[in-house]
Formats: sequence, structure tokens, C-alpha cells
Amino acid sequence: DQPLTLFAGMNVLESAELADEIASAFVEATSALGMPYVFKASFDKANRSSINSYRGPGLEKGLTMLADIKSRYGVPVLTDVHETWQAEAAAEVCDVIQLPAFLARQTDLVVAMAKTGAVINVKKPQFLAPHEMRHIIRKCEEAGNDKVLLCERGSCFGYNNLIVDMLGFGEMKAMNAPVIFDVTHSLQRPGGRADSADGRRQQVAELARAGVAIGLAGLFLETHPDPDHALCDGPCALPLAQLPAFLAQVKALDDLVKGFPTLDIA
Amino acid sequence: DQPLTLFAGMNVLESAELADEIASAFVEATSALGMPYVFKASFDKANRSSINSYRGPGLEKGLTMLADIKSRYGVPVLTDVHETWQAEAAAEVCDVIQLPAFLARQTDLVVAMAKTGAVINVKKPQFLAPHEMRHIIRKCEEAGNDKVLLCERGSCFGYNNLIVDMLGFGEMKAMNAPVIFDVTHSLQRPGGRADSADGRRQQVAELARAGVAIGLAGLFLETHPDPDHALCDGPCALPLAQLPAFLAQVKALDDLVKGFPTLDIA
Amino acid sequence: DQPLTLFAGMNVLESAELADEIASAFVEATSALGMPYVFKASFDKANRSSINSYRGPGLEKGLTMLADIKSRYGVPVLTDVHETWQAEAAAEVCDVIQLPAFLARQTDLVVAMAKTGAVINVKKPQFLAPHEMRHIIRKCEEAGNDKVLLCERGSCFGYNNLIVDMLGFGEMKAMNAPVIFDVTHSLQRPGGRADSADGRRQQVAELARAGVAIGLAGLFLETHPDPDHALCDGPCALPLAQLPAFLAQVKALDDLVKGFPTLDIA
Amino acid sequence: DQPLTLFAGMNVLESAELADEIASAFVEATSALGMPYVFKASFDKANRSSINSYRGPGLEKGLTMLADIKSRYGVPVLTDVHETWQAEAAAEVCDVIQLPAFLARQTDLVVAMAKTGAVINVKKPQFLAPHEMRHIIRKCEEAGNDKVLLCERGSCFGYNNLIVDMLGFGEMKAMNAPVIFDVTHSLQRPGGRADSADGRRQQVAELARAGVAIGLAGLFLETHPDPDHALCDGPCALPLAQLPAFLAQVKALDDLVKGFPTLDIA
Repeated sequence: DQPLTLFAGMNVLESAELADEIASAFVEATSALGMPYVFKASFDKANRSSINSYRGPGLEKGLTMLADIKSRYGVPVLTDVHETWQAEAAAEVCDVIQLPAFLARQTDLVVAMAKTGAVINVKKPQFLAPHEMRHIIRKCEEAGNDKVLLCERGSCFGYNNLIVDMLGFGEMKAMNAPVIFDVTHSLQRPGGRADSADGRRQQVAELARAGVAIGLAGLFLETHPDPDHALCDGPCALPLAQLPAFLAQVKALDDLVKGFPTLDIA
Repeated sequence: DQPLTLFAGMNVLESAELADEIASAFVEATSALGMPYVFKASFDKANRSSINSYRGPGLEKGLTMLADIKSRYGVPVLTDVHETWQAEAAAEVCDVIQLPAFLARQTDLVVAMAKTGAVINVKKPQFLAPHEMRHIIRKCEEAGNDKVLLCERGSCFGYNNLIVDMLGFGEMKAMNAPVIFDVTHSLQRPGGRADSADGRRQQVAELARAGVAIGLAGLFLETHPDPDHALCDGPCALPLAQLPAFLAQVKALDDLVKGFPTLDIA
Repeated sequence: DQPLTLFAGMNVLESAELADEIASAFVEATSALGMPYVFKASFDKANRSSINSYRGPGLEKGLTMLADIKSRYGVPVLTDVHETWQAEAAAEVCDVIQLPAFLARQTDLVVAMAKTGAVINVKKPQFLAPHEMRHIIRKCEEAGNDKVLLCERGSCFGYNNLIVDMLGFGEMKAMNAPVIFDVTHSLQRPGGRADSADGRRQQVAELARAGVAIGLAGLFLETHPDPDHALCDGPCALPLAQLPAFLAQVKALDDLVKGFPTLDIA
Repeated sequence: DQPLTLFAGMNVLESAELADEIASAFVEATSALGMPYVFKASFDKANRSSINSYRGPGLEKGLTMLADIKSRYGVPVLTDVHETWQAEAAAEVCDVIQLPAFLARQTDLVVAMAKTGAVINVKKPQFLAPHEMRHIIRKCEEAGNDKVLLCERGSCFGYNNLIVDMLGFGEMKAMNAPVIFDVTHSLQRPGGRADSADGRRQQVAELARAGVAIGLAGLFLETHPDPDHALCDGPCALPLAQLPAFLAQVKALDDLVKGFPTLDIA
């Protein structure tokens, strides 16, 4: 059992300055704790509720910002891709490329991403049972890539609500792929605001602790220095000022549970 | 209240001969009943569970088959598109282009489809509340297209099950867009077979009647002469031989309920 | 296929006068349509959200009111029981006694009710799959009573919402018990008001039509002359003034669908 | 933040010998860890799926067994009551009496239990939102009892499945009642076997850890020395031999998280 890796940063790239502020805070906090870290940011939010919502700097500018973070801080970087033609360019810069939940069943996108040879972070669709994730792993394998991460981000629970099935983590761990937990998107209330999702960031520590206590390969997290003015998903974001205190809890918990023996229950 | 329009045909284009057999059966059955009819078939199944599943003839060959059906039978045709670059070509042949449920939040695809000027059939995502469909209507309108159909196809209900919320039809009708009901996909049990969805085609008449009794603009339906050997979604398909008997029920029901006065309940 | 029976009246017995007003309206409307009718009212609402909510006249007074309705109008009557000791008294007056949804798994209550020999109307619990209703039928049979009605009233769908699974009717019909549809309770939004359930009575006709179009043994319905001032479940009640128009639709629909042949789909 | 209290023992009282074996194991394991402990067992399983399932020794014999355990080991005891007339007798022996989930809305039962003055453990119904638990607290208070525990045991998630909403713990903690987690019933798959519930006891440690990591007042747990031959709910039971290893994890986790500061997130 390896220690927990943190895949974290910001939702959408708002500016190079903000990306730098956030990366810097994460690098400092994670190195203090000896926690492996991957910087995450999106260059495009391709499925906002409203056509007028901020989408991001786009592929080219976004990858430049990510390359800057990567070289300045010496950390691996992650971004999500939405169309087949973006996969190769994204993988030239990014160590991990992410398959969005709504798109996780699109065969052409899966194959294009797999062929880059990058690590693929597959967000579990809100409409999919944990056991169905093996189909996506197999699609990647058949395209020649077995470096797949499985990422929980909540399941549909009635309308406008998500719920995390803690028993799903165990089902996915049995597929022999590292399982990570996107805690901030799991806090969403989809459609909860007039033209965007609402969220429950007040409960981020509780939910993260519940997941980490299972024993996970990684935690996925979005932050913002001023969540009320974030350009996307602020209602779910961890306030950046809370990062060290938050990570200290996560780290202590992970250290504890990774030392537990497995109970042998038939 | 206009009479019900039938959007129907087959899941994926298996061959020109099969498309012709099915179109011919629909044209005969719908003209006997005086029911407006649009032929439906897919040129590509872009999100099969398994990479090895049949996907279809592809865009070019598929559109040729659809154009043939259209000219031979004089009926409008409908197909679904999955990537932005397919929208224009599809709209040159098809009267209605369809936005898939998993992709219904992808802004670029919505906009590319809306700009063609074709009628857009929006499949309601399994993860979306009915009231959220107004965001997709608005995206289309802001791209200059107000010819939007809203299509129910079931909501996530726990894992591996769909359920149709009959109260959602009324919510969507209040958005002033024609509301149609994809009864065969609503019969799916997602992930119910080893590497594909299972279905409940035995209950197609019951479920179609429940929806049509609400008072709808259209019914969406997939059929196959031999569902057990269909290349996709056979477990949900109406056996083609049952089409006339099925449509007779639907037609009689629609005629009856369209004559009902609206109850005035505050 | 027998014509639809109406099990209907009021939620809780508010007064003898109101019971008479409602029974009179139902008797007039159903005899005009030739529709079999059973008067329904509760003597006690034993599970209100708040301890201060109105509960009803209690067993003794309530049964007197029901006996009056029965003798004055010559109609069978139905009430629900909540504790084992009430079953026998209720069955002395009532032709049908009803097992509440939350209590449908309580073995002692099921057995006490079954032993009366009365017809048992089993409300399907909001937490139970349709296929599990066979366990309750079997409990009744093992207590010597096979006169069981199965009554749909919606399934939990996330928090504070119910949804009716139209495919569940077919599953229950296959158990060879008459299946009826409690349309007004299915309109509830549990916990939707500060200290009681909210409802969607505006959609009562739509939802009733959807169910009746399946082909059912009966419809269950609560009404009130002034739903905004009803002492319980007003948000779901059909306004009494709309009863004739509502029943005309239900009757026409039932007549139509009961004449349909069964489609033979393997 | 008090240390976690364990409410645990067996599902149904099978025999005095088995109760003693289980109580003895718990007393030994909890005193080794300095963990407060309450023995739990049921005298009657009043809502089994099948009428032929084992129900227990009944009220009188069951209370005798519980009184024996209490005096022999000097531990408080807990049992569940199902009818109003049982409340007083149960409270004469038991320190905590439990309101079953399906019955948690039955006003008369709530009031009868509250009037005993015993601590009331309210199982959260599978069909209720966390915020609705305040209605049950208020019913108890209005009957003069504010010693209420709130107990999570999973929410309906589609048919035949339960899911634990980890965010619900925080909502309930805000009601200022101690919140406890029934981890073994949360593992149920209701209706998952031919005539009883199935379960996922292999995952008991994972699920318990997730809940305890939130920071709870107590953990509720059922065990059996031979779960495959337990007379009720064996598929969910922790094998008794695993108890010390299981509790060691729970204790370490609780100690850790109770020392965490609360993150101040607006």
C-alpha cells in the first residue's frame, strides 16, 4: 500500500497568476507532508449548464500554462480532454490526462486517449455502477494502455443530488487499478443554482475523511483562494487558506489506515 | 393538440436491405393509420460498453442509406451525431438531428448542431432533472435555433436500472417545446448483460401506453425483425411483426387523450 | 379483464358531514359511469410528521361514520388499520381493510388482518421492489387469506421525492392479485413542507391516465372539496368539483385499453 | 468530543448461551480498548420477509436474557420495540430502547417509548431524508424525552440496495443529538435472497471506517460466531472472531479524528 497521491489544484484555469498561486500553495503543503502531488487544472469546461458561463483559456493557452507550472515546480500535471483531437496535444504536456464522466463511454475518445500512452484518469460517470468500470479499463487495454486510474465522483441520487457509495471503492479496487476519490465534485448539487451546480464545500473535510479511511490510492481536490468568486464550481471548492489544515488530516488518516491489516472475512 | 408523430425505425444501420425492410413496414403501418412518421437510424454507436461491439457503417455510408430511404419513401429522416464535425453533413440529409443523452451537456456539440438549422432532438440525460432541460433549450436558442424537441428516455434509478418519471413530461411540456418519448431506450437495464445493456421489450406496449396517455407530441421507437439477433439493443426492440398491432393501440390512445379537456386544478 | 374499480373518498375523516358530501359526490359520479365504487376514509393518521397534526376521530367514531356511509349509500367501505387489535373491529364494518405502506412488513399486523377474512389492500412500501410483494401475498395466504389487492403508491427517488415505476405494474399483475394504483399518494413530495408532505395535485389527471393506460384492476384516489384547507394531504387531493371530469377521462381510457389484445412479445 | 460508544451484540436472541458468548467477547474486547459498550439484541424480529423465518424468544424470555447479560457483565443493554405495549416492559430492563426504521413515523409508538424515560435510539428510515429526523426528535421532546440517539442505517438506492450518505451524518449532528452508525444493517441488500435480505459483510471494515472517520458518537454493530448459520441477517454480520481486530481499527481511527480541529469553511 503506497501512500496517498494528491491530484489537486483548481477547476478551470482562470489566469496564469492564479494557477501559480494555487500550485505554489500545494507544492509547499504537500512537500511539508511528504505527499506525492500532481497539479490539476482544466483548459476548457465543455459542458457548463449555460452557454454564457466561463469556459477557460482553451487548449493552446491552457497547455502553455500547465507546461509552465510543470517546469517551474517540477510536478506532474493533469488536465481533462473532451474531443479526440485534443488527446495527443494534452499528453505531450500532461502526465495524466482525464476522461470526463459524461464522456467516459465514448469509445473514440477513450481510444484516442489510450493511444497517447499517458496515464488515463477515468472519472466514473454519475450514471454508472462501479462494476461497469471494468468495461472502460478493457477499452483502454485493447487500445494498448493499462495505466488507468479509476476516479469516484458520486452517483445520481434522485434529481439534483449526488451520493458517494463507499462500498463502490472496494469493488473498483478489486479491478487492480488505482482508485482515487474526487471529493470536491462529489459535493456538487447538480442543477442546484439558477444556471449552474450548487455545492457543499462546508462538508469537504468530512467527505474526504470518509473516503480516505477506506484506503485509497489518491485524493482529487479542487481549491480556490476565494470560492465565492471562482469562475466555476466555487460552491464545491476547498478555500485555499484551509489547505494545510485539511491535508494534515488527510495525511494522518491515510498513514493510519494504510497500516491496518486486512480483515479476512469470507 | 396535434396528433402524435412517430420517430421510429432501427437502432443502428445494419444493412441497406434491413433499413429498407423496416422503413417499408413503418411507412405502410403509419399511412394506414394517418400517423406522421420520421424514419430513425444511427450510422455509429459511439458509446457501446465494449470496444468489440458493432458500431455501424459510419457517417458517409450511413447518410447515403438514410438519403435512399428518404427519397424512396418520401419520409423525413433522423439520425444522431456525436462530434461537432458531423453535424453539418448529417443535417444536409436529415430533417432531424439528435443530440445523444450522455452528450447533451457538451456546449460545442449543441452549438454545432443548432447552427445547422435542422430540428434538434435532445435526448434527456439519465442524470438530469426534467427542469434542467431548459438550459439545453436556451443553448440552442442562443445559437439561433428554436426548433428543439425534448425526448424522455428514463432516469437513473439505483444501479443498472432506469425509471420513467411520468410527472416529468408535464414539466417539460411547460417549456413550450414538443415532448417525445423514447420508449424502447427507457426499457434498458444498463450494464445488465456481460458486455452490453439488457432490456424489457416484453413491456414495450405497457410503457408506451403509459406515456402516450399523458398527451405527447411524439413517440420514439426502435424495432427489429429479429430482436435476439439485432446488432445493438435487441433486448429493448419491438419485434417488427408486432408493429401494426402496437401502433393501433398507440393511435387509438392518442386520439382519445388528445380529445380530453384539461382539468383546471390550482 | 373486468372494468376498473374505484377505491376513493377522503384522506382522514374530518366530520360526518364532509364524509357524506364526498361519498354522495362519488356515488353520483360513479353510478353515472357504471363504475364499481368503494368508499375510502381513514379514522386515524398514525404516522404524521408532526405530533400536533390532526389524526382523525379514532377507531370507534370512525367506524360509526363508515358504517353510516355504507348503509346510506349501499357501497362497500375501506379503511386502514395500524395495530393488530384494530383489525377485527375494522373488518366488522369494512369490506376492505388496508395495510399501510410503512407497516407492510410487520408480520403480526399482516396476520391479524388476514385472519379477519376481509379483503386486504396492501400498500406497496416506498422502499420495496415490486417483486418483493409476493412475500406479503404469501404471508396473507399462510394466514388463510388469499383476497389480496396490491396497491402502488410510488417508490423513493432520492430524498423527498417519489416516482412511480410503470413497469412495476406488470410485475405485480403477474402475481395474480388485482393491482390498483393510489394516484394521489404517488403525487406526494415527502417532507416537502415544514412539517408535512407536499404534493402535486395539478398533475393528478396525467399520472392517473398513465397508470390506467397500463390496464389496472382499480384506481385509488383521495379528494377534498377544498384541498388547501384539508386536514391532511391536501397538496395531493383531487378537488371534488373536478371529480366528474376526471372520472370521465379515466373511464374512457379504461374502456379503451381493456379492449386491447395483449401483444405477444417473447 | 467524547470517545465512540459501541452499541453491539447480535441480531436476534438465538439462545442464552449464544448471547453470553457474544456479550463476553464484546466486554473483553471493549474493556481492553477502554471503549464504552452497550449490549444489543432483539427479542422479536417483527418484519421478516417470510412468515416462516425465526422471530426470537419473545418479549418476556428475551428481557430475561437481557437482564441476565446486564447483571452478569455490568453493561447497559439495548433492545428494539415494535408495539406500544412493549415499551414500558422493555424500558424496565433496558437502558436504551430502539425505534425500528420502518416504524419511526408511528406517533403512538414514539410517544409510548419516549414516556418511559429511557434513551431512545431512532433508526433513520430508509425512505427518509436526514433533515426529516428533526420531526422525530420533536415528537420525543413533546412527549417529554430529549434523550434521543439518531442512528444511520442506509437509504434506499433503487431496488434491493442501500447506500449510506456520508453527508447526512453532518446534517444530523447539527440537530444536537448524538449520531451513531449501524454499519451492519447498512450492508444489507434488501430482498436480495429468495426470502430474506442479502448482505456484504466482507466490506464491514471499509464501511465502518468511512463512517467513524466523520467523527461519530457511536457505532452500532451485529456479530455472530458463525454468520452463515445465523438465524437472521447473517450476510451482514461481523464474524465474532474478527471482533478484536475490527475494533482496534475503529478505536485508532476514532482517537485520531476526535483530535482533529474543525475546519472553518463558510
